[in-house]
Amino acid sequence: MEKGSLLYEGKAKRIYATDDPDIVWIHYKNSATAFNGEKKADIAGKGVLNNKISSLLFSKLAERGIQSHFIKQLSDEEQLVKKVDIIPLEVVVRNVIAGSLSKRLGREEGEEMPSPVIEFYYKDDALGDPLINDDHIDYLGVATSEERREIRDMALQVNSVLQTIFNEAGVILVDFKLEFGKDREGQILLGDEVSPDTCRLWDAETRQKLDKDVFRRGIGSLTEVYAIILERLGGTAHV
Amino acid sequence: MEKGSLLYEGKAKRIYATDDPDIVWIHYKNSATAFNGEKKADIAGKGVLNNKISSLLFSKLAERGIQSHFIKQLSDEEQLVKKVDIIPLEVVVRNVIAGSLSKRLGREEGEEMPSPVIEFYYKDDALGDPLINDDHIDYLGVATSEERREIRDMALQVNSVLQTIFNEAGVILVDFKLEFGKDREGQILLGDEVSPDTCRLWDAETRQKLDKDVFRRGIGSLTEVYAIILERLGGTAHV
Ligand SMILES: Nc1ncnc2c1ncn2[C@@H]1O[C@H](COP(=O)(O)OP(=O)(O)OP(=O)(O)O)[C@@H](O)[C@H]1O
Ligand SMILES: Nc1ncnc2c1ncn2[C@@H]1O[C@H](COP(=O)(O)OP(=O)(O)OP(=O)(O)O)[C@@H](O)[C@H]1O
Ligand SMILES: [Mg+2]
Ligand SMILES: [Mg+2]
Repeated sequence: MEKGSLLYEGKAKRIYATDDPDIVWIHYKNSATAFNGEKKADIAGKGVLNNKISSLLFSKLAERGIQSHFIKQLSDEEQLVKKVDIIPLEVVVRNVIAGSLSKRLGREEGEEMPSPVIEFYYKDDALGDPLINDDHIDYLGVATSEERREIRDMALQVNSVLQTIFNEAGVILVDFKLEFGKDREGQILLGDEVSPDTCRLWDAETRQKLDKDVFRRGIGSLTEVYAIILERLGGTAHV
Repeated sequence: MEKGSLLYEGKAKRIYATDDPDIVWIHYKNSATAFNGEKKADIAGKGVLNNKISSLLFSKLAERGIQSHFIKQLSDEEQLVKKVDIIPLEVVVRNVIAGSLSKRLGREEGEEMPSPVIEFYYKDDALGDPLINDDHIDYLGVATSEERREIRDMALQVNSVLQTIFNEAGVILVDFKLEFGKDREGQILLGDEVSPDTCRLWDAETRQKLDKDVFRRGIGSLTEVYAIILERLGGTAHV
């Protein structure tokens, strides 16, 4: 497999073509951003941590039957994945009240919900990724109602698997953001990444934040807490 | 029927008790507000216009089988209605892109939608009446999923009936907000008001705004355009 031209440079990853048109090469960058890109920093070691955590979680999800774009980890900061057409929805799964949901509903951060809450945001930076409902999705035509239900079911399955994994690691899975895409055959696959950049993770005992909120709120070292997550999941942070 | 004590004073109406605990007396006020109460004015003649339009529309809705709280118009500014426990949802039905939906989805105001879009907002002034989805409604417990579906169906029925009525009056029904409540038996009834305060109405020929946007945007006389609506619906604005 050869690394080809740069297809897309995002805030957290670079996507390269390969000699196989159905496969792309992902490079996890060292940059951290928050508040729709308003807060930025370069953090040495972030790329490798997110790549390792994401690779590990995609592998565990595959073991439990969840189809994702993940093929394999190539190096510390690189991954090989199936190329998909990303469905422009940010799919958020929430188990505990935090962040924007706390503000939206006026409920205390930390309140556990009796069943998971799923939210769809329209993936559009210029619009600030607004919350949308099923009728908006139908109108926008970004997914059929069947695809929407399939995505919802997959997101709930991912949640069950991740909850078990994190629970065993002494970590509360507060909420997380997923992206889905369609491969050449039209099959819906879990895409993008699953990492402390895209999950809210709290220590089950101390409730210490072990995710990007540490950076968002300036309350500690991002790589320190990401390394805790990697090690709790059975990975090794240092070579 | 006797008018009793003031139960609630809102921005647009006052609600009084009557000697029947299941019936309340509504007084339509002359005040206009917008942007969550930031913009305010006292406009002579507004109360009577809204009361007449709302009474007329509730009557027409009843003729087409839609159950509302409306009992009868009492005077220029007063109505008798069944007392309900208002379900804290603002139910918005949209046929044409306008207002906040235009901003949310980045689509041009005036674009017609192939089928109506329904939105639920959590009726909570302190939170700014945020958009919520079905999972949020389940979590908040403000309506069961069955009630949510019933409200949605009723809102779509109201839309069909109102579209016919306004179409015959040479008016485009762009969007509108409904509130529903439960009577003592738990029956869901359409409540609150249906007026140019709560509907976006455009002249079908000229696209002139004939609703509260005239006040919101400071582009004309509110009572002049509300009187046009009342007369187009077959009512008389002046005594
Ligand atoms: N398997 C895949 N095939 C094609 N594109 C993918 C795949 N997985 C993820 N992507 C997309 O690649 C980009 C990853 O880059 P990154 O996460 O840095 O983007 P970003 O800064 O979050 O910006 P945005 O997600 O708004 O484009 C995202 O646009 C993501 O949707
Ligand atoms: N049949 C009814 N029984 C009881 N309350 C009702 C009924 N119909 C409407 N209401 C409620 O009465 C109030 C009407 O007053 P108004 O429209 O002026 O309120 P508002 O300023 O819009 O404020 P808010 O709706 O946020 O309370 C609303 O709270 C409305 O929900
Ligand atoms: Mg991203
Ligand atoms: Mg009101």
